[in-house]
Amino acid sequence: MLGQMMTMPLTINSLVDHAARYHGDAEITSVDTDRSITRTTWREVAGRSRKLASALSNAGMNHGDRCATIAWNNYRHLEVYFGVSGSGLVCHTINPRLFPDQVKYIINHAADRIIFIDATFLPLIAGLKDEIPSVERIILMGPRDDTTLGQLPNLEFYEEFLETGDTNYTWPEFDENTASSLCYTSGTTGNPKGVLYSHRSTLLHSLAVSLPDSLNISAMETVLPVVPMFHVNAWGVPYASAMVGARMVMPGPGLDGDSLVKLIEDEKITLALGVPTIWQMLLNSADASGATLESLKRTVVGGSACPAAMIDKFRDQHGVETIHAWGMTETSPVGSVNKLLAKHLALPVKEQNALRTSQGRPPFGVELEIFDAESQPVEHDGVAYGDLHIRGHWVVSKYFGFDDSTTTKDGWFATGDVASIDADGYMTIRDRSKDIIKSGGEWISSVELEGIAQGISGLADAAVIGARHPKWDERPVLIAVKSDGDIDEKTVLEAYKGKIASWQIPDAVVFTDEIPRNPTGKVMKIVLREKFAGVLEERGA
Amino acid sequence: MLGQMMTMPLTINSLVDHAARYHGDAEITSVDTDRSITRTTWREVAGRSRKLASALSNAGMNHGDRCATIAWNNYRHLEVYFGVSGSGLVCHTINPRLFPDQVKYIINHAADRIIFIDATFLPLIAGLKDEIPSVERIILMGPRDDTTLGQLPNLEFYEEFLETGDTNYTWPEFDENTASSLCYTSGTTGNPKGVLYSHRSTLLHSLAVSLPDSLNISAMETVLPVVPMFHVNAWGVPYASAMVGARMVMPGPGLDGDSLVKLIEDEKITLALGVPTIWQMLLNSADASGATLESLKRTVVGGSACPAAMIDKFRDQHGVETIHAWGMTETSPVGSVNKLLAKHLALPVKEQNALRTSQGRPPFGVELEIFDAESQPVEHDGVAYGDLHIRGHWVVSKYFGFDDSTTTKDGWFATGDVASIDADGYMTIRDRSKDIIKSGGEWISSVELEGIAQGISGLADAAVIGARHPKWDERPVLIAVKSDGDIDEKTVLEAYKGKIASWQIPDAVVFTDEIPRNPTGKVMKIVLREKFAGVLEERGA
Repeated sequence: MLGQMMTMPLTINSLVDHAARYHGDAEITSVDTDRSITRTTWREVAGRSRKLASALSNAGMNHGDRCATIAWNNYRHLEVYFGVSGSGLVCHTINPRLFPDQVKYIINHAADRIIFIDATFLPLIAGLKDEIPSVERIILMGPRDDTTLGQLPNLEFYEEFLETGDTNYTWPEFDENTASSLCYTSGTTGNPKGVLYSHRSTLLHSLAVSLPDSLNISAMETVLPVVPMFHVNAWGVPYASAMVGARMVMPGPGLDGDSLVKLIEDEKITLALGVPTIWQMLLNSADASGATLESLKRTVVGGSACPAAMIDKFRDQHGVETIHAWGMTETSPVGSVNKLLAKHLALPVKEQNALRTSQGRPPFGVELEIFDAESQPVEHDGVAYGDLHIRGHWVVSKYFGFDDSTTTKDGWFATGDVASIDADGYMTIRDRSKDIIKSGGEWISSVELEGIAQGISGLADAAVIGARHPKWDERPVLIAVKSDGDIDEKTVLEAYKGKIASWQIPDAVVFTDEIPRNPTGKVMKIVLREKFAGVLEERGA
Repeated sequence: MLGQMMTMPLTINSLVDHAARYHGDAEITSVDTDRSITRTTWREVAGRSRKLASALSNAGMNHGDRCATIAWNNYRHLEVYFGVSGSGLVCHTINPRLFPDQVKYIINHAADRIIFIDATFLPLIAGLKDEIPSVERIILMGPRDDTTLGQLPNLEFYEEFLETGDTNYTWPEFDENTASSLCYTSGTTGNPKGVLYSHRSTLLHSLAVSLPDSLNISAMETVLPVVPMFHVNAWGVPYASAMVGARMVMPGPGLDGDSLVKLIEDEKITLALGVPTIWQMLLNSADASGATLESLKRTVVGGSACPAAMIDKFRDQHGVETIHAWGMTETSPVGSVNKLLAKHLALPVKEQNALRTSQGRPPFGVELEIFDAESQPVEHDGVAYGDLHIRGHWVVSKYFGFDDSTTTKDGWFATGDVASIDADGYMTIRDRSKDIIKSGGEWISSVELEGIAQGISGLADAAVIGARHPKWDERPVLIAVKSDGDIDEKTVLEAYKGKIASWQIPDAVVFTDEIPRNPTGKVMKIVLREKFAGVLEERGA
């Protein structure tokens, strides 16, 4: 027997309609590509999104067609988000930090018909234009600017394109499981793979991430997504902000510490979201200028593990709560958020702080589990490691263009991370599955060894790989770059003593000139393994 | 094109599973019918819910069958909520304050097969037992108690029934639009009508009401639902609390002011929800005892309009924020919640406080509109009145057992209230549609006139009806009960001057001994109209 309640699809256009209707004058502050500031509102964003949707329809775009963006976080990008997805097209956000060959691969794989770009990325797209045959229109996100036509003669202009649309456009009706947006992973190996989000998955994610124990997003906040809109939809923040009517401040290309400090202080940001690298620059800049970041109440840190020292500094120096979160492109992205539970308030502050460093717990809507090599669940004791699996309403089931399911027979997605989970469900990422070192049946976390290396003075950079070993299969080896020419292998290995069980200490240190990283900053361990996996054999182990 | 994300139904069993998995040791504190306190946890509630579901299945209950409850807010009632709905049966909560004939009508209309009751309601159900043929089992929510068998020889006992179930039961899979629960309206006229909620409507409502700008429910809270679980599912709080893992304190039958003050102080309640009458008793009791209600941060007030003085007293005397909300059985119930917007923080505190008295704004998921007699939208200026309509994910589409849709051709549900909406979407209920006085084409709010009457010393109770008038069609007449024998009509009418436009002042005051009310405390204006609608004609108007 079915209930007798109204049913209507959970669609992205209903988010921006709600924002326009109930938060129409909430401001969208946008740093443009030329660093000027534009102030618009949710009402205007909604109106222009509809007009854009109409223009796209007039241009012959059909349900499910892909429109790509290569753009900063700004108000036009926000309009594209809602106008494209809201009308049943797919908003494909491209990461401009990828190698041009990868960008080309992605555009061709997605068969994008239109690309919206910011001026910054004209050279990138001009260099590819003859190799992306599906692309019919390239639209510069701004008013007409004839000076750009030298680089790309057929370039169109957003403001002119918008004028071909009708403000009285009404959103079409479609199934809530319709594809809404597409984002490719930036793996360290192989071609990028696309995750095709649905309206339903996006809406449920928006609700869950806005909850008080998640990112706690409300109409009281001024939200600064430093995390790019090409990076898992800026962690879903544009959708969530529309849903609750938060004011948004879009930083455009101004992602250096000084620009962010100024933006936070000028615009009275209350909630900012980004990766640790960004926050390190921000904190350094605030130190240098003496800025207090007074309005800022919370930062959300994800993308990679947040050092405890950063959480401490935000809290002690700026009165800012750092919310450590974990997720991936395949999980929309929020898989877990670190918030305390009521029972923790009785603990000494130091213990409370220590609890904040893990990647946290899942909100309602997703579940996490860890499995051993025999696919048996691993105990939740906060110590034992296992392969981290996730399932829920906003987790990938297949990659775009692939028939194979990404899920196990029990419906889990294997994240490729190794993690522990404690009795309360707090999860700590220990390593990438492929990077963990399997030494005689025991697992050793390369991440943990790298964390210790970060604290050894005399080292500028370091990474750990498993090197082949005749007895133990694999043993850890530290690949390090010196900052102090005098440091030697013995000193480095001495520094590990007492910080970790002796059998986990690396067998060797190999000094090198540079740790290879991919365009998003991840260490390319595959390169290190090719070069150094035989080092212990060479040394006669 | 569809997205490629995992899809799984939004079902109530996933709420209690999440609570067990991630908030297993969060406490459920329960005042039992004998006033003793039982302490259980979300883990135990989940386990016993599954066992109950198994027992119900063993007892031959089939998908969609109705199980009724006539019970206080306590932990067994919570188990019934999740065990019944979670297994695909319908949890039908019955309001014991209805007249026995209405209870009989409701049980027969719903064709309940099982009724779970608290001991308090044994006499009620014993009196009806021969007139409710669909009912196969009546189960007392407690351990075996042979002394009760005199009243109801076939009575069964919850704890024994539970033992017929299997803890290893797994929830069945079913469509998220499956009926989950059933609640009958307590109208002032005609037979009660049932609203049949779905799992999907309940889950989306739970997400939306937990948002920071709604009731802001999190794992940090200790939630006291004084609003009964037979009253629109305690406003959805049990579901939302499971979703976020809040600690719950269930007050059982202890709904008097002294009991509630003690419970709030003993159990350190942070968030309490109920109707104004309850809070008035609570505030009086706190005044008498000098209780400070220190732990209490927020009260949610709904069910009827919250007097501004109550909001002030909670804030100024106890440091408690009052969240004024509006809804109805047909809207799950939350249709609007009064929270400030960021821009209001710049206003003087007095103006902020004044803003808190309206019924507020809808969270994402529902929309409100007001319409005039020609079904045209009325201006959102905070002054103009119209018939209040609502639509959204948790609004009724048909009453249970009726084929007629409850929605207009544009998909709205007419609430039967008259309201104004301001430019920011803040809604103020002005009257019930059938109670508004239509005087020469202008509308006069009976609620507004009654509000003024409340402030006139010498009056104990009062209600306003529209009396027939040869020139104006209707004119307001105040029906009043004296507390001071000396007060007269002229004094009462004088008291209206300056408080309202002169043409809105009642034409007459009629003194009577009692204002007739239905079992839930609503004035039965139909009775007053039968008696007094001709009073102005009689007086020669």
